[in-house]
Amino acid sequence: MCITQLSVTLGLLGRSGCSSVGCVHHLFSRRCSRKRAFQIAKSFLPILEWLPNYRVKEWLISDIISGLSTGLVATLQGPFPVVSLMVGSVVLSMAPDEHFLIEGSNATGTNGTGALIDTESRDAQRVLIASTLTFLVGILQVIFGVLQIGFIVRYLADPLVGGFTTAAAFQVLVSQLKIVLNVSTKNYNGVLSIIYTLVETFEKIGTTNIADLIAGLLTIFVCMVVKEINDRFKHKIPIPIPIEVIVTIVATGISYAADLEKKYNAGIVKSIPRGFLPPEPPNVSLFSQMIAASFSIAIVAYAIAVSVGKVYATKYDYAIDGNQEFIAFGFSNIFSGAFSCFVATTALSRTAVQESTGGKTQVAGIISAGIVLISIVALGKLLEPLQKSVLAAVVIANLKGMFMQVFDVPRLWRQNKVDAMIWVFTCIASIILGLDLGLLAGLLFGLLTVVLRVQFPSWGGFGNIPGTDIYKKVKDYKNVIEPEGVKILKFSSPIFYANIDGLKSSLKSTVGFDAVKVYNKRLKALRKIQKLIKKGKLKATKNGIISEPGINNEAFETDEEPEDNQDLQVPTKEVEIQVDWNSELPVKVNIPKVPIHSLILDFGAVTFLDIVAVRSIKTIIKEFERIDVRVYFASYQDNLISQLERGAFFDDTVRKDIFFLTVHDAVLYIRNQMTYSDNQDPIFEKISLMQESKEPIEFSEASQPDDELDVQEEAMRRLAS
Amino acid sequence: MCITQLSVTLGLLGRSGCSSVGCVHHLFSRRCSRKRAFQIAKSFLPILEWLPNYRVKEWLISDIISGLSTGLVATLQGPFPVVSLMVGSVVLSMAPDEHFLIEGSNATGTNGTGALIDTESRDAQRVLIASTLTFLVGILQVIFGVLQIGFIVRYLADPLVGGFTTAAAFQVLVSQLKIVLNVSTKNYNGVLSIIYTLVETFEKIGTTNIADLIAGLLTIFVCMVVKEINDRFKHKIPIPIPIEVIVTIVATGISYAADLEKKYNAGIVKSIPRGFLPPEPPNVSLFSQMIAASFSIAIVAYAIAVSVGKVYATKYDYAIDGNQEFIAFGFSNIFSGAFSCFVATTALSRTAVQESTGGKTQVAGIISAGIVLISIVALGKLLEPLQKSVLAAVVIANLKGMFMQVFDVPRLWRQNKVDAMIWVFTCIASIILGLDLGLLAGLLFGLLTVVLRVQFPSWGGFGNIPGTDIYKKVKDYKNVIEPEGVKILKFSSPIFYANIDGLKSSLKSTVGFDAVKVYNKRLKALRKIQKLIKKGKLKATKNGIISEPGINNEAFETDEEPEDNQDLQVPTKEVEIQVDWNSELPVKVNIPKVPIHSLILDFGAVTFLDIVAVRSIKTIIKEFERIDVRVYFASYQDNLISQLERGAFFDDTVRKDIFFLTVHDAVLYIRNQMTYSDNQDPIFEKISLMQESKEPIEFSEASQPDDELDVQEEAMRRLAS
Repeated sequence: MCITQLSVTLGLLGRSGCSSVGCVHHLFSRRCSRKRAFQIAKSFLPILEWLPNYRVKEWLISDIISGLSTGLVATLQGPFPVVSLMVGSVVLSMAPDEHFLIEGSNATGTNGTGALIDTESRDAQRVLIASTLTFLVGILQVIFGVLQIGFIVRYLADPLVGGFTTAAAFQVLVSQLKIVLNVSTKNYNGVLSIIYTLVETFEKIGTTNIADLIAGLLTIFVCMVVKEINDRFKHKIPIPIPIEVIVTIVATGISYAADLEKKYNAGIVKSIPRGFLPPEPPNVSLFSQMIAASFSIAIVAYAIAVSVGKVYATKYDYAIDGNQEFIAFGFSNIFSGAFSCFVATTALSRTAVQESTGGKTQVAGIISAGIVLISIVALGKLLEPLQKSVLAAVVIANLKGMFMQVFDVPRLWRQNKVDAMIWVFTCIASIILGLDLGLLAGLLFGLLTVVLRVQFPSWGGFGNIPGTDIYKKVKDYKNVIEPEGVKILKFSSPIFYANIDGLKSSLKSTVGFDAVKVYNKRLKALRKIQKLIKKGKLKATKNGIISEPGINNEAFETDEEPEDNQDLQVPTKEVEIQVDWNSELPVKVNIPKVPIHSLILDFGAVTFLDIVAVRSIKTIIKEFERIDVRVYFASYQDNLISQLERGAFFDDTVRKDIFFLTVHDAVLYIRNQMTYSDNQDPIFEKISLMQESKEPIEFSEASQPDDELDVQEEAMRRLAS
Repeated sequence: MCITQLSVTLGLLGRSGCSSVGCVHHLFSRRCSRKRAFQIAKSFLPILEWLPNYRVKEWLISDIISGLSTGLVATLQGPFPVVSLMVGSVVLSMAPDEHFLIEGSNATGTNGTGALIDTESRDAQRVLIASTLTFLVGILQVIFGVLQIGFIVRYLADPLVGGFTTAAAFQVLVSQLKIVLNVSTKNYNGVLSIIYTLVETFEKIGTTNIADLIAGLLTIFVCMVVKEINDRFKHKIPIPIPIEVIVTIVATGISYAADLEKKYNAGIVKSIPRGFLPPEPPNVSLFSQMIAASFSIAIVAYAIAVSVGKVYATKYDYAIDGNQEFIAFGFSNIFSGAFSCFVATTALSRTAVQESTGGKTQVAGIISAGIVLISIVALGKLLEPLQKSVLAAVVIANLKGMFMQVFDVPRLWRQNKVDAMIWVFTCIASIILGLDLGLLAGLLFGLLTVVLRVQFPSWGGFGNIPGTDIYKKVKDYKNVIEPEGVKILKFSSPIFYANIDGLKSSLKSTVGFDAVKVYNKRLKALRKIQKLIKKGKLKATKNGIISEPGINNEAFETDEEPEDNQDLQVPTKEVEIQVDWNSELPVKVNIPKVPIHSLILDFGAVTFLDIVAVRSIKTIIKEFERIDVRVYFASYQDNLISQLERGAFFDDTVRKDIFFLTVHDAVLYIRNQMTYSDNQDPIFEKISLMQESKEPIEFSEASQPDDELDVQEEAMRRLAS
């Protein structure tokens, strides 16, 4: 009997955990809203507070009625597929059938189906593994609670949970399918195991037991029809028809009466262990093998329980303390782990029964647990003739809702493609890698999408809507006007190591030129002019450069020609030259035009900068200043200034006067500056050539590899030095 | 001889890769700036373009001179620590000494130091592993290039590289230390291996060879002093003193003359393989064991080379095509891998020599490779008496710069704590887990910090700076005024699954109440009022509720008392009640006051929303509308509207008229609405009690668990149902 089936059976017998966690939440958390500064001891053990205040007259009757109802539901309908399946996959991988072959039995080669299996020692080992796992999950949950990291549940995004649960449903379906068919397969585990199982099931479909198949199909059909009726007429019928219970009882009766096992070789439940196992210490040596799976299970079980708890927290207006929940589940699992129990979580259906039948406190939970205890002792024996395929069929009939989630995907794709990708990725990863690794892969994928969405933001050149102080993207709006000589770039994301290149390229694309390239070309032109002045072919005056006639027929320089450093001569006379970079030069160097004097970076959406970004932005300012474009910042967040200060952003040349509250303020300031400046056109550059000197002229030094120019690469270059 | 030493030796002999990658870049990439639409064949093989255009007269002499110089430097100074070490650790883990014990030799128990090792087959196996690794690295690099994922290098943040290289330097130091001491240890590999090696080295420090130690210490001292001199007087001496070469020659002479090996049992280089190995196919069966390490090496080697290339791209004004680089390195490594060569990357020092001596094209690279070839054949024999400890000491003396990076950390901590944490985490992880896994861990940690910085943004209530249309954080600024009845929240980050809870709690904290709680309390009060009206103790009129005298002495209801659903009676007569929630109520229910009528969310920094966020924000709007607080959005990014539209955000009640271009626009609109509204105070609520009806009153339904109230939890609850 596979462990999923075992857990289903355990579930039917009500062993699969506390049925009243919703109520536990209720009482656990009421504390929070009443007294914040309660003693630590009581805060970790809320029972010390609520039990002495128990109002016997008001609550006891309700609690008893509610406890009885919940206990009955828990007895009759217990399976909780996702966590059970995750536990089951661990148990299967650590104690497969092959470990328990009886030596000398009829082992028919590799497929192992003919070999006898020592089911007793196998099941004992499996129970030990499951309870050890429960114990470890408990320890992890307590640790999570003490470290106050209940918030990690937040990373289980909605689409991730959708994909994960659909994959879980698929895994459950495959594991139950072979039971419905009564086909035996190898116990695969690890990557792709569910696919192998499915393939082998279909390969062996010829060995299907017809009696089991018919019983299973009938059960699925009946359950689905009745559930549909329950759903359609939920306002007209007082309680839903408990079809699972009815089917189970009827099928047990038929199987017993017709003796299906003997006549048709049907697979029946056969032996349900009765009574209770003595407490057994967990096998600590198994911990290292199950740590990854425990991690996933601890978080999933907790997340499910908290999500249910929050429904009632909202309804009854109290707050849930996520870390206290972790601690509560942790101790509960540590305790159960020592008594051969199963990982606990919450079932919405049972919690709803307890609440709607008037349960007030955990006393109802204790009573419902008592009912389950009695059932385990008394009822187990009666279910022994039940076909396993009927139980499996009941599980399959309940998977419909989970599979229906697949139809969410097209809608999700229309609404948000990234979220749809998270859904699909998590689903496929969970099917291929198994539920625990698949969940981890989905989590990492989800976080990566956040990084990518932050890394590749929207950006664009902005312009003014005439008559307002509002600036909008030039490409998206008609009649938006860019101020003359000013470019405005909005880069809508935090700036950090992974998108600093993106900022630079969006900058180039917005202003239309590359500041470093322009500077290098200008240097080259200046050197040529110097040479020509020296040769007497050009005259430099205060009004600019006057070319002698007949020297403009120099060959046009191509971009590809390497620069001829050797020919650079030191000039011999001091001369002041004014160069108008936007007019035609006497030397034919192809210098990109710089049609702007100011650049405004709208930092409205830049919520943080890392150290690489701070240094790179400083470099960008200096690169633009070198070609007479002044850089301003607008709409910055207040905390940005302190981040820049700490990052040694400000110095003598980069001061705080380049920061403006709004883009419009910056534009007004620039307009003002241009109007009242001393009439000197800033695109004219005055340079002074130091002459009769042996030192290379000042500006040529800047063409040396300048480490500052890309701080990000500097670290890598250290490696190469 | 450990592989690091082997690679050092190989490096000295110039085998460790192409020395002219900088120049290769130069020529590879020139293509990019010239013609974008060049044929695909030429774009993948740039040599087809540059070689036919070679200007023999102009370039050949320069190329020859440069090639000769670079070849000499490459011969004399080749070691490249980081990639060599990463390769070395793979080789060690896959071919440790223990695999090559000669049977029947004097194996003294577990430590293995006394056992003889079959060095010949061991070294053959190690060369095979190293060249197979090189081959695999090449394949990965070609794949990365073809898939156009050169951008992944961006994730190697500056602090990450700092921490990683410091850890690499530490690994190199430990591996060289045992050679300086001539102490043999086991070859540890895997997690913590470097720590184990260090511990064992110190445990066996008694077996130190004094001759080797003295030679090593002298070498370290001399090298460091001369390098310091080189550094201090770099402007006064024409070329740096090549102290490594001098030390190596002198030490070889001393060792040969004094016969240190025989007299003092010193560890010498002994045999350097001469000539060339025949080409050998890589061992494909080893691929699966080295795939993780190959991945790290492929990226690190590439990142180092590109960072050097960019220095010259900036200087000579051309662009580097990152994906073309990947393809070039990939094919180069695939080719070398078939000839027993080592992973190629770039050394800044050799590239600088080639550039400064006037190298123009890859012809210089070919000439320098020729020099190295001659050295391998001719010079290897001469170095055989050299002590290994001298070589190790030369390596150690060159690590100083890498270790000095540790002093960056305090500065980094002051500038940006997150970046400092990335540095420290990567360094510790790389020491503990090894360089390949450590790099991966550092990468993931870096991405996680981005998620966390986005997830926990700054937020706060904003107010108006009087006389302006500017709004600033109330807590940070004096004289900032919140408009009456309006709260303005700015939440400065994208909103997605991981911070939707943060948005909700910042909302509660800003407005000062919990909208759901207020609504539930109001419902409770309404029910009580209904009851009292039914009992005749209250009268409802159009002017409000008039209480009969003497009924206000009802016990004050405590928060803890559970709500008494059972007592709720259906009212019997139709009555319209006006309740002023801010005045004292005739029933004593403790309802939080709602002092606002409008809430403005400043979405200026909300650059994207995922589907969970869209749904949750819609829920928030509805929760506030229920208690008569209208929600507005301001300063939104343009693309947000389309995201909201796709996410089915807008409907009959949530329309686009709640979006405003600026916060001030929203405030003006609200002020206008309040002035010209029909004088009905919105904090008075008109309710109509449907009487004589068997249906529960309309508003009581909302207190049922409302799935819409938390869309994030809904997915998890599906699991629990």
